[in-house]
Amino acid sequence: MADSGKSALLVAANRGPVSIATGAGGKEEVRRGGGGLVSGMVSALSEVGGLWVCAALSDRERTAARRAPEGHLAEAGYDTGGLDVRMLPLDPSTFSRAYNGIANSTIWFVHHLLYDSANTPVFDAGWRRLWGAYERYNRSFADALAAEAAPGAKVMVQDYHLDLVPRQLRERRDDLRIAHFTHTPWAPPEQYAMLPEAVGREMLTGLLGADHLGFHCARWADAFLACCADLLGADVDRSARTVRWEGRTVQVGLHPLGTAGQEMRERAGQDDVEAGVAHLRDLLGDRKVIARVDRTELSKNIVRGLRAYRELLRSRPEWHGRVVHVAYAYPSRTDLPEYREYTAAVQRVGREIEQEFGTDDWDPLLLEVANDYPASLAALRMADVLLVNPVRDGMNLVAKEGVVLSERECAVVLSRDAGVADEYAPDALMVNPYDVTETAEALHTALSMPLPERQDRRKRLLAAATALPPADWFRQQLDALD
Amino acid sequence: MADSGKSALLVAANRGPVSIATGAGGKEEVRRGGGGLVSGMVSALSEVGGLWVCAALSDRERTAARRAPEGHLAEAGYDTGGLDVRMLPLDPSTFSRAYNGIANSTIWFVHHLLYDSANTPVFDAGWRRLWGAYERYNRSFADALAAEAAPGAKVMVQDYHLDLVPRQLRERRDDLRIAHFTHTPWAPPEQYAMLPEAVGREMLTGLLGADHLGFHCARWADAFLACCADLLGADVDRSARTVRWEGRTVQVGLHPLGTAGQEMRERAGQDDVEAGVAHLRDLLGDRKVIARVDRTELSKNIVRGLRAYRELLRSRPEWHGRVVHVAYAYPSRTDLPEYREYTAAVQRVGREIEQEFGTDDWDPLLLEVANDYPASLAALRMADVLLVNPVRDGMNLVAKEGVVLSERECAVVLSRDAGVADEYAPDALMVNPYDVTETAEALHTALSMPLPERQDRRKRLLAAATALPPADWFRQQLDALD
Repeated sequence: MADSGKSALLVAANRGPVSIATGAGGKEEVRRGGGGLVSGMVSALSEVGGLWVCAALSDRERTAARRAPEGHLAEAGYDTGGLDVRMLPLDPSTFSRAYNGIANSTIWFVHHLLYDSANTPVFDAGWRRLWGAYERYNRSFADALAAEAAPGAKVMVQDYHLDLVPRQLRERRDDLRIAHFTHTPWAPPEQYAMLPEAVGREMLTGLLGADHLGFHCARWADAFLACCADLLGADVDRSARTVRWEGRTVQVGLHPLGTAGQEMRERAGQDDVEAGVAHLRDLLGDRKVIARVDRTELSKNIVRGLRAYRELLRSRPEWHGRVVHVAYAYPSRTDLPEYREYTAAVQRVGREIEQEFGTDDWDPLLLEVANDYPASLAALRMADVLLVNPVRDGMNLVAKEGVVLSERECAVVLSRDAGVADEYAPDALMVNPYDVTETAEALHTALSMPLPERQDRRKRLLAAATALPPADWFRQQLDALD
Repeated sequence: MADSGKSALLVAANRGPVSIATGAGGKEEVRRGGGGLVSGMVSALSEVGGLWVCAALSDRERTAARRAPEGHLAEAGYDTGGLDVRMLPLDPSTFSRAYNGIANSTIWFVHHLLYDSANTPVFDAGWRRLWGAYERYNRSFADALAAEAAPGAKVMVQDYHLDLVPRQLRERRDDLRIAHFTHTPWAPPEQYAMLPEAVGREMLTGLLGADHLGFHCARWADAFLACCADLLGADVDRSARTVRWEGRTVQVGLHPLGTAGQEMRERAGQDDVEAGVAHLRDLLGDRKVIARVDRTELSKNIVRGLRAYRELLRSRPEWHGRVVHVAYAYPSRTDLPEYREYTAAVQRVGREIEQEFGTDDWDPLLLEVANDYPASLAALRMADVLLVNPVRDGMNLVAKEGVVLSERECAVVLSRDAGVADEYAPDALMVNPYDVTETAEALHTALSMPLPERQDRRKRLLAAATALPPADWFRQQLDALD
């Protein structure tokens, strides 16, 4: 920690690097967050004694946060691995309205183009109450950051939950250096303008409170710049990627998050994954494997992926008995009805495929909708073909992790509308995610690709996948604030 | 007719200027098409003895078309009002696939941004069979036009059903002068690119077979030009609105279709409409009237319009008992499940409004889902406020007809995403069609607007509405071919 208990480096994110759960026997248990991104940020924070500010996500966490001095978990005796974590005990209805009602519905939907415009969105008085909660939720973060930051500190704000924080924080503390990173895509102006005008402006000007704004790829950064020009009338330099706004110059940067190859391989070499690999080998024999791993998320396009596999089996019967599609679609946002319906649609198409093609000797599809991380890593190790076909995706890290883990020189069938497409084309087989026939043909091409060509392509894909691992990704943004 | 039975001016449209129906006692009946657009084109055709080529839309029409010499109805004794009409007896399954499966589903949906991208569209092998039918359907028109056109004739192709005709026709007859008019919006490149790449190109190059391409407003024309630049790599001059393609220069023109004021007023003065007006006066007394008239079409946004009215009644109780919303939502495309569901949603919200606000003395909503043209004209005559809030609309002629017919100096609440917005802003009250609260506030502003301001605005709206009546609109495009 810096002088007088203030921090020189702060991360703000909805989710913390640790969570507090109720363990066996009702006892409190502290769990460290998994994932390379969190570890990358934690290690950078730990170096300088920085602070992570997050929201309490459950009643258990709210109680813990209220008991801890100013929400600092370590000071209340929680084992945060030495990291200073401040958890904000937001009122549960404010949190739920901001998180489910706005962030994961409105903002997620608009950037992923998920709206069914004849019916959704509906911006009415009820929606405006949700928006008010999103403003308050962001303000709680801005207040905490303003109170905790040392003079001239760097504040790294994460993602679409906190789009208003940069400006709110600057209004409180104009000495700070503020960065924000958007992990989702950004909508082009015509879609972005579905939002109520004042709200669309508030999100843009909220972000423009930062000194530096990060995106995964040029496409999303440029869509953001187009929104600033078209909807704010801001002075945008598209080639330098800067926005002049209220007398300041905001820099927009590309930071395509990659994966930490060595760590991934170590995790995937542990016993639980080895057991999964042995199990799959037993089950699949020497058949080719088309693997996919996703949250069951509307944007992930699992249903069209299954339809493409079905069309492959219909149009190319030579693959009958010789290929298995291993699809891990773990549950997500099951409190939203659209997501429950989508999960049901995934399972329905899965059953249809089994009924149409399954034989006594061959199960064409292994579809798992349970949450089993080791099993999903096992599937990636076994992949001959990796299918990543989202309708839209900020980056898609599975496309990078799969290339790192495949032991079979996997070919990649990739949606042109994933952020990773910028780095992966033309070594991945690029598809229009709405075009099931094109996807089926790409699967056939991938399955048929000679080994030397796959090796050659994978070498370059691997370099792209590991070019900017999380720790470097974070440092790059810290440097951009200097 | 020109020399040797060939025509010097031809119109091609899916729907003809006459239809053949089964009348009382099973006898064939020829009906003239209504609507200003058809009359405008018919009068121009009649002057020069031109030909209208259309599809047979029913079994009855197919039989008639097959019996007539080369499909020429007048030669078979049908009373076409002196106009030469050739009806194409297409195979019913080809017609239905092209018309319902492609034109009214894929093309309509992509240009109106109606896709629910998590689930639709799905471009698979089955869809490609539909697309093949659309190609054949267009080819039947191109064949007929090529056979009927005199040397150097002008051919005026109508709308999204026939996007491939210009190129197909040019390949057969490069002496002709070909125009095409798009009555729908045009999708921006990011949405247009949902189409399979080859199909997207085929539609663009199909249209670029014409010499002149017409759109209702700059927004759709510019979206088309952007698609040509981004997806074809064509040489586009955006300020001159030209496209260089295959050695030719294609001109893109703006022809904002208007209404024939005098004719509209004459029709609306007939007895059936007078009876409707008398009926409404009885029913409504001296209450203010918010009127809307639409097909029950996903893009027309009737549900959000009703929600806005409900929000008005909730937030501005001073209007209780003083206003009635008269909404004519006549049936459309009832063979598509999305449309049946949408009609049910309209009726559901309608009932909710009646239950929440209705009293013994006041029915807040008069919702009619039947097809009653005279009654809808009566509603327009009675309008104090005209509500036109489509999520997207090529033009929206009701916005023009309503301004012509209102006897109460109506104020207009208008979606910024209708083609007519270009001509009506700022005299209409412009709204974001997704923003129910903004729409409710605009209704309040419209209801509260002092008479002098309404008169002032309406004068300018009326001038815009009648600036380019159908006959002039058609002549303008004929001239553009010279």
